[in-house]
Amino acid sequence: MSATSPTRRAALAVTQGDPRGIGPELILRACAAGKLGPEDRLFARRDVLEAAAECGAPWAAEGLARATSMLAAPEVFSRSSGPGDPASQVEALEAAVAALNTATLGGLVTAPIEKLACQRAGFGFPGHTEYLAASSKVDSFAMCLVGPTLRVALVTIHVPLREVPDRVDMGAVSAVGRLLGGALQRWFGVAAPRVGVLGLNPHAGEGGMLGNEDADVIAPAVEDLQRWGEGRGVVFEGPLPADTAFPRHQAGEFDGVVAMYHDQGLGPFKLAHFHDGVNLTLGLPYVRTSPDHGTAFDIAGTGRANPSSMFAAIELARKLAAQAGDAD
Amino acid sequence: MSATSPTRRAALAVTQGDPRGIGPELILRACAAGKLGPEDRLFARRDVLEAAAECGAPWAAEGLARATSMLAAPEVFSRSSGPGDPASQVEALEAAVAALNTATLGGLVTAPIEKLACQRAGFGFPGHTEYLAASSKVDSFAMCLVGPTLRVALVTIHVPLREVPDRVDMGAVSAVGRLLGGALQRWFGVAAPRVGVLGLNPHAGEGGMLGNEDADVIAPAVEDLQRWGEGRGVVFEGPLPADTAFPRHQAGEFDGVVAMYHDQGLGPFKLAHFHDGVNLTLGLPYVRTSPDHGTAFDIAGTGRANPSSMFAAIELARKLAAQAGDAD
Repeated sequence: MSATSPTRRAALAVTQGDPRGIGPELILRACAAGKLGPEDRLFARRDVLEAAAECGAPWAAEGLARATSMLAAPEVFSRSSGPGDPASQVEALEAAVAALNTATLGGLVTAPIEKLACQRAGFGFPGHTEYLAASSKVDSFAMCLVGPTLRVALVTIHVPLREVPDRVDMGAVSAVGRLLGGALQRWFGVAAPRVGVLGLNPHAGEGGMLGNEDADVIAPAVEDLQRWGEGRGVVFEGPLPADTAFPRHQAGEFDGVVAMYHDQGLGPFKLAHFHDGVNLTLGLPYVRTSPDHGTAFDIAGTGRANPSSMFAAIELARKLAAQAGDAD
Repeated sequence: MSATSPTRRAALAVTQGDPRGIGPELILRACAAGKLGPEDRLFARRDVLEAAAECGAPWAAEGLARATSMLAAPEVFSRSSGPGDPASQVEALEAAVAALNTATLGGLVTAPIEKLACQRAGFGFPGHTEYLAASSKVDSFAMCLVGPTLRVALVTIHVPLREVPDRVDMGAVSAVGRLLGGALQRWFGVAAPRVGVLGLNPHAGEGGMLGNEDADVIAPAVEDLQRWGEGRGVVFEGPLPADTAFPRHQAGEFDGVVAMYHDQGLGPFKLAHFHDGVNLTLGLPYVRTSPDHGTAFDIAGTGRANPSSMFAAIELARKLAAQAGDAD
């Protein structure tokens, strides 16, 4: 196992995402830029990519030519009716997950889907992450945002703020802390990770003056994590005031932090890494990343979408998959 | 009125803060650096500044010599017993507020106090802001963080997260939006400010899927603010997803944002402006700023405290006070 020199270039499965969004053109752009290559497999309708190439960007024709040779078999897309049918995003995802059970693909990169269209196409999950966890029969999983200076795993994600305090229980905090600590070692090659665990309330409750959950729930979870990490070389610290934890993380005091809820984690993360942040799923048997943005229907088809996050998602998936492969 | 050329150098009142904290040495450092001058008035015990000068930093002796000539009358400190008595922080604040009623002082800069010690000295307020509002008989006030790229006003501040959704009512959102819009015009010299109002829930509720408060409470408050701002040239937009609003603010799309709660606003703010952020109180009849850090007892007396936020607080108070004076 080596953190710096993976021994092979891992092959990736890449899904097209919503055909009406920017996913297909970002895939063409990644192919043209050499971010994706012959070892990778694209789960996309050919006519969806052809339509995306009509954006007329300088990289479009070359991207399409390269992408065509990397396409999964067309019979995968037997239910969707054409390039305009949003059902193809679900078919692409299902086919990619089935293919990941083979040994040759080391990771999955998903382009943005649109929830409502997926549900209309019979997809019974709130998003990618929940579907992938269910299809891998995984109970313990978490969303983690990864950027050049920050790594933020979330205890709760798409939950109304009012429900957050009751959802943040000791088991959930401890589970996400373990997932992050384990991923930092196994995937990121950090031998002795330092993980910061944020508090729920302002100033992490300020000794009970600003709420009791930090002392009653998060502190015991951190103690549990400290016991778990002791034999493994993972150090946990917390509960930390959220507002000062991110500068400390960025300054190198932590290798990652566990945030309790969406805006607490994503507010600072997106300010630091608006264009180069990657969404990484923790807890799956394979590496899965996605760009940290949505379908962006408003600019789809123009070729103007910023490819940085998609490129970063591909690069991170390839690096982590190789690292995981080396660690096996 | 001019945004760029205030016609006079406003005089400031500056309080010492907790004598056991870094406030007194930061004041000496500001005096030595010329950030404070003969027109300003220091509300500090002489022996507290003398003790701070014993940190032995290169600027300490000159800072003390300059500071001594700017001291308020010693009879102000008749209740505290000596430089080690934390009661002097309350006396300093009370005397500064009394002096602000004179015409010669245009703004107040407060060094950090320690809540518990203040309460033991008979101070019946959770912090500076609440005391200043009460002493000015002001009902509508707000804390605003100001940095080189972000201005963030808070609807709730030191409130347990569980209580936040019920505290965010239409009146509170509308009041803070008006204070921020007004301050941007009157103090910051922005003729037609654009203000972003954040949502409460992830993705600003995502059409009701992630909570109803964004549609039921914040959207009507934004409509109210839009009506209020229409004749005044202030534009309001929201409710905005919090995680993408800060990059938009930093990119110049907004002149300031209204955040609903502590970590939603301060997490991104402190990541961007950990050392140069300033706490500005909106709604008082005078300008009041303070550094965006606490007493830092652990490094007090060493001369190592980073003065950036204190310097920025002084500079901002002087600039805004002059702007407000010109606007009168």
